[in-house]
Amino acid sequence: MAIDKKVVVFVGGVGGAKLALGLQHVLLPQNLTVVVNIADDFFHYGLRICPDIDTVLYTLSGRVDTSNGWGVANDSTIMLETLRGLGADAWFRLGDKDLATHLLRLNWLTQGKTLTQIVQHLAQAMSIGVTVLPMSNQFVETKVQTKEHGELDFQEYFVRYRWQPTVTGLRYENAEIATPTPEVTHAIAEADILLFAPSNPWLSIAPILAVNGMRQLILAKDTPKVAISPIVDGKAIKGPAAKLAHELGYEASPTHVAQFYGKIINGFVYDTQDSGAMFDQHRHIALDTMMHTDADKARLATQTLEWIASWS
Amino acid sequence: MAIDKKVVVFVGGVGGAKLALGLQHVLLPQNLTVVVNIADDFFHYGLRICPDIDTVLYTLSGRVDTSNGWGVANDSTIMLETLRGLGADAWFRLGDKDLATHLLRLNWLTQGKTLTQIVQHLAQAMSIGVTVLPMSNQFVETKVQTKEHGELDFQEYFVRYRWQPTVTGLRYENAEIATPTPEVTHAIAEADILLFAPSNPWLSIAPILAVNGMRQLILAKDTPKVAISPIVDGKAIKGPAAKLAHELGYEASPTHVAQFYGKIINGFVYDTQDSGAMFDQHRHIALDTMMHTDADKARLATQTLEWIASWS
Repeated sequence: MAIDKKVVVFVGGVGGAKLALGLQHVLLPQNLTVVVNIADDFFHYGLRICPDIDTVLYTLSGRVDTSNGWGVANDSTIMLETLRGLGADAWFRLGDKDLATHLLRLNWLTQGKTLTQIVQHLAQAMSIGVTVLPMSNQFVETKVQTKEHGELDFQEYFVRYRWQPTVTGLRYENAEIATPTPEVTHAIAEADILLFAPSNPWLSIAPILAVNGMRQLILAKDTPKVAISPIVDGKAIKGPAAKLAHELGYEASPTHVAQFYGKIINGFVYDTQDSGAMFDQHRHIALDTMMHTDADKARLATQTLEWIASWS
Repeated sequence: MAIDKKVVVFVGGVGGAKLALGLQHVLLPQNLTVVVNIADDFFHYGLRICPDIDTVLYTLSGRVDTSNGWGVANDSTIMLETLRGLGADAWFRLGDKDLATHLLRLNWLTQGKTLTQIVQHLAQAMSIGVTVLPMSNQFVETKVQTKEHGELDFQEYFVRYRWQPTVTGLRYENAEIATPTPEVTHAIAEADILLFAPSNPWLSIAPILAVNGMRQLILAKDTPKVAISPIVDGKAIKGPAAKLAHELGYEASPTHVAQFYGKIINGFVYDTQDSGAMFDQHRHIALDTMMHTDADKARLATQTLEWIASWS
């Protein structure tokens, strides 16, 4: 059963990609636009690596390594081992199949294509029917201030140091000069529903909202705008969200996540495990937000959209 | 037995790398400099590919796929197959192990290092003791004029069309503005002997000689300067040398190769299979120039250097 609403979903990496996959199951392809964080992007060995974009593309095309939630299934690391054999400090995993994506991107970047065009080409090459858009064509970089190592590039913090350093602050470099692309602006304008995936609020959603003009575009929308909590029972489903919340002096709770979104949203989905939680500001519902199987993903997408449909 | 002479050898790809390996066996590492053609270099998927440099590095480090004479032994093509699966026209072989070299080079290029520095780093990473130098730090590109396809980039002619088109002319783009590096200039100045490997005169040696000032550096040397014929019994040992000679209106013979070098050399080595050939201009010797085994390579290197030693 396809729900006939135009939906824009804002996502980071693994958790966001799972919800996007669920939405892809229940919406017509022309009705779904996935707007992806690019503030995790970085250059590695001269390649532009877009971890969140690639996780979304691999997930939506069925290529993803489901044991990690990122990377290509059954990938090998022959290049990477060779690089290490040549003395390189190759701390970021570049699988051999994954490399094909990076080389296509490099090729198109050197031809002067925008990141939006490149993601379109990649999505087409992977036979993805829904629209995947980077939040901006400009480079935005999350910088992580840590107690132990000073300011780190995001991937250093996340991959090299496995998010173990204590975070004292975050900033999104270039966000103030980056703008939403025309395609993102158009998709938001046309959307019947805006969704915020259960991605890390500070590391995945905040950089998207920090893009100059993005917050205003969303605030101006008079439609359902719903976030799904990535914090369940005081813990992050995956990754550093809960640890980060504590370090930044916040409570790791769906209540705090709802406060993070504030006026950006008018509806909030949290997990049934937190059914005692209190929300003043937003319409809210407790759903089973765990997305282990593809059926879970489609169910959460469906239940969220059906709840929104019940508003009117 | 190491011969105590400083030797500079000018090489292209496979044939030149074999002689360089032979010389590496018989000379002290500090006495051998290999100056390599880079006019075959090109950009592919945003990577700078240096086919001759890499063939030399892989050969001297024992990494080479000896069945081809180029590429890394036991390499796989997982990235390449994935690239093709994504609809790319990936006509140039990029092996997974080989890719590590291309990524290191890309990384260092984006950091602003010169090609000379990059080749030094790669040689060091591969534990190569002799000095390998690109002919120039500037880009020179062999362009091949063909009857069937007009002007082609070298690798299109060589790899994509497998040197089957009829060649009507050659030019070396940028050669007139490229200069020999300080390292090449110094190595030539210091050398006791200059050797020209049995590489393709028109495709490998001519672009080196076309670099602005290179010919003068060599002409100014008053030392033994010896070329080894890549044409044996009217045929090229490998590749298009004989076919190309015919198409350009030359005789495919060691006599014509010696004429090609002219005043650049003062000694010429040809194969015993051509022992009837006539040479007016140069001191000459017939040797077994076939380099099937590593022992063959060392033998040809030794016999050539011993012949040169006998001049004085």
